[in-house]
Amino acid sequence: MTSEDSSPARPGRRQLLRAGSLGAGALGVGAASIGLDRTLSGRGASGASASASAAAPPLHGGETVPFHGEHQAGIETPAPAAATFVGLDLREEVDREGVLRMLRLLTDDAARLTRGEPPLADTEPEMATQPAALTVTVGFGRGLMERAERAAPSWLDPLPPFGIDELQDEFTGGDLMLQVAAEDPVTVSHALRMLLKDARAFTRVRWVQPGFRRSPGIVAPGSTMRNLFGQLDGSANPATGTPHFSHVVWIEEGPFAGGTSMVIRRIRMDMDGWDEVDRTAREQSTGTRLDDGAPLSGGTETSAADFEQVSANGFPVIGEFSHMRRARGVDDGEHQEIFRRPYNYDLAPPPGGGALSESGQIFVSFQADLLGQFLPIQQRLDTLDLLNRWTTPIGSAVFAIPPGCAEGEHIGETVLR
Amino acid sequence: MTSEDSSPARPGRRQLLRAGSLGAGALGVGAASIGLDRTLSGRGASGASASASAAAPPLHGGETVPFHGEHQAGIETPAPAAATFVGLDLREEVDREGVLRMLRLLTDDAARLTRGEPPLADTEPEMATQPAALTVTVGFGRGLMERAERAAPSWLDPLPPFGIDELQDEFTGGDLMLQVAAEDPVTVSHALRMLLKDARAFTRVRWVQPGFRRSPGIVAPGSTMRNLFGQLDGSANPATGTPHFSHVVWIEEGPFAGGTSMVIRRIRMDMDGWDEVDRTAREQSTGTRLDDGAPLSGGTETSAADFEQVSANGFPVIGEFSHMRRARGVDDGEHQEIFRRPYNYDLAPPPGGGALSESGQIFVSFQADLLGQFLPIQQRLDTLDLLNRWTTPIGSAVFAIPPGCAEGEHIGETVLR
Ligand code: HEM
Ligand code: HEM
Repeated sequence: MTSEDSSPARPGRRQLLRAGSLGAGALGVGAASIGLDRTLSGRGASGASASASAAAPPLHGGETVPFHGEHQAGIETPAPAAATFVGLDLREEVDREGVLRMLRLLTDDAARLTRGEPPLADTEPEMATQPAALTVTVGFGRGLMERAERAAPSWLDPLPPFGIDELQDEFTGGDLMLQVAAEDPVTVSHALRMLLKDARAFTRVRWVQPGFRRSPGIVAPGSTMRNLFGQLDGSANPATGTPHFSHVVWIEEGPFAGGTSMVIRRIRMDMDGWDEVDRTAREQSTGTRLDDGAPLSGGTETSAADFEQVSANGFPVIGEFSHMRRARGVDDGEHQEIFRRPYNYDLAPPPGGGALSESGQIFVSFQADLLGQFLPIQQRLDTLDLLNRWTTPIGSAVFAIPPGCAEGEHIGETVLR
Repeated sequence: MTSEDSSPARPGRRQLLRAGSLGAGALGVGAASIGLDRTLSGRGASGASASASAAAPPLHGGETVPFHGEHQAGIETPAPAAATFVGLDLREEVDREGVLRMLRLLTDDAARLTRGEPPLADTEPEMATQPAALTVTVGFGRGLMERAERAAPSWLDPLPPFGIDELQDEFTGGDLMLQVAAEDPVTVSHALRMLLKDARAFTRVRWVQPGFRRSPGIVAPGSTMRNLFGQLDGSANPATGTPHFSHVVWIEEGPFAGGTSMVIRRIRMDMDGWDEVDRTAREQSTGTRLDDGAPLSGGTETSAADFEQVSANGFPVIGEFSHMRRARGVDDGEHQEIFRRPYNYDLAPPPGGGALSESGQIFVSFQADLLGQFLPIQQRLDTLDLLNRWTTPIGSAVFAIPPGCAEGEHIGETVLR
């Protein structure tokens, strides 16, 4: 047996947007290269590890995603296999200076960790050497903005209550959000612990939600993920790296320009109930095909849905109460868009209840305009959506994602100035 | 975006040990090829997926590990990224016939799923097409043997209580154990659900423990895993595919010949306490180096430890209370061996407690002789082991792993005959 690479990865080529290039001229620079911006570095990339034979596939433990830039990483960058989301509450005694000190610490940690380098206080430096495309994304709640004595965006509030909600306090709210994601869960686990150790003097853990998608190399990169209902989930997302994506996701003006809004909702999925319905009913519930994700009106996953199409008996092929039709706002003559980046969870069932598991989705969406894009969609789905029969929101939080920062800056520097 | 492959994988070359080759003559056949016995199959393997460019690395969602054979898969086969362990209790009304019916169902499901084919009742067949080296391993508790009206092995009992134990009922015991493991957690999730659905008429879920290791392709295949303390964990394991491994792990005589005994202990790891001690103290606690796993007496991870070596001040370099020395039995003139195949867990902390996480190891070991190999090691560690300061067993179970089965047979057929 050979041991894991224990020497810190040395980034070969860093694609950092520097401070000077952060102005309007740099807009769009990052976008076109998104998806291509992973850099291979360190021994992990070259197969120089003692046991790797010449024919072995290249290892991607050394892959890095640039931390600095116009936007925070972890949104437009490809969604990796493992992500843990954490909600934190600021301790009572933490003031504006404390908030800034904490953000400087977290930024320094995140910048190092995402490069495959141990942060300053890392007592397990060997755990930091496989960044595996690690990203750290930071979001602010109203509580943090207030403590930092700066005006929160007007939309930065909990979502209004919905009829479908069965929210639990333990998955709801928070002053600060960390999204730590990588192609490897061991990397996520270590990086998160390093961050939480530095955040501990300033915050208390409110909730922790680990999630998963397919491991790297299982299906083709860029494939839409399947959720635990077996649905292709994300087909209608705006394509990353396009001007359309930027339009849907990035805030254009004000202190949060280059940032976005994030909704994170823990949605329990009733696997047993889902099992009881046949494929037709399942496909009706979303308006999409289970096998290839095509709209029920035909074509492939990427085909435009034909909402006018009617079946022999005169009913719309993509039913009026289907999740897709309702989400899209077809019958209200609307069409809001958001970018969804969800993760699955599948945990031990609560003891004694007879359930086989506690399963669901950590629903995560990013949108430039929370009230204008996300809210109408959620309101329509709350009013009517066949999928509601098997899904229950049990947690909910909203965060303002500040833009990315340049080297030497800390996350949120411009919005808290 | 392209969708995941939705056509069932077609195994290209199946390496099945057939019924006729299961006699003594076949002994060792599997062993030498272990580690090489993954077969690529289906679209996932060939990169024929629409979006995969010619230069894309091969996908390994289609990898299969043979289900049938002399031994059950999931023990000597490489430990993949994700594993969930489940303990089940038989329902009161289930008799011998019920047990056999259930095992036939589970065997049929497992054989199909591990080939990348949906089981008969699969309502999400698309979820079955990426076996990703899936293995399903089945273990029997005394309760199952009794219900099947067959004599349990004499050693098939809970471990005696240890001073270090703080066992919780919810992670302890069980009549039946399923270990479902694959390179992909989505595959594990679906496969487990299919199995539990078929087991539901016969069993109740007692406990579920999902665990993780590094994702595929992060570090070189065959690398020793790092646990959440950052230690290389598994260095002294007998090498798979060797006669020595067979000697340590496989039972040689009686109905369970070709099978083994399994210990699964949930061990909480006190990350905060661990953080407080320096590297020297950490390395002393095991007797191994944190960076490369070499024994403190020098060399590399694979070097033989020199337990006689003393430091300038006359103390043994590998301390008397170190985990390695105690586990090995050096000072008792003993040397038992076991094969450890643990997984990490890292979950949300219990609310309100101030902890950053609930972390630890799902310790799993296989050994031919539970009482002669595992027990003395555990007894020594219970008496004295520096690592005990930061580790607490909170769950424990013992299972008898029947040998593998041939096509047309069900798991446990020979031991329940
Ligand atoms: C567990 C909960 C959910 C599941 C299982 C789910 C599943 C799906 C599926 C299968 C599709 C069709 C394929 C696709 O475009 O992704 C879809 C589309 C969509 N969903 Fe959801 N969804 C969930 C919750 C939500 C929530 C909470 C929202 C927002 C409030 C949402 C908004 C959308 C939107 C905007 C679309 C695209 C519609 C279009 O324009 O075609 N979904 N969802
Ligand atoms: C969370 C709990 C545990 C941790 C973190 C841990 C960690 C380690 C480490 C780092 C090593 C040295 C490298 C290696 O050979 O793997 C080791 C060795 C070993 N451990 Fe553990 N261990 C744990 C629990 C146990 C338990 C419960 C047993 C059995 C009762 C055990 C038996 C052994 C054995 C037999 C060795 C090899 C000793 C030798 O011959 O060199 N360990 N363990």
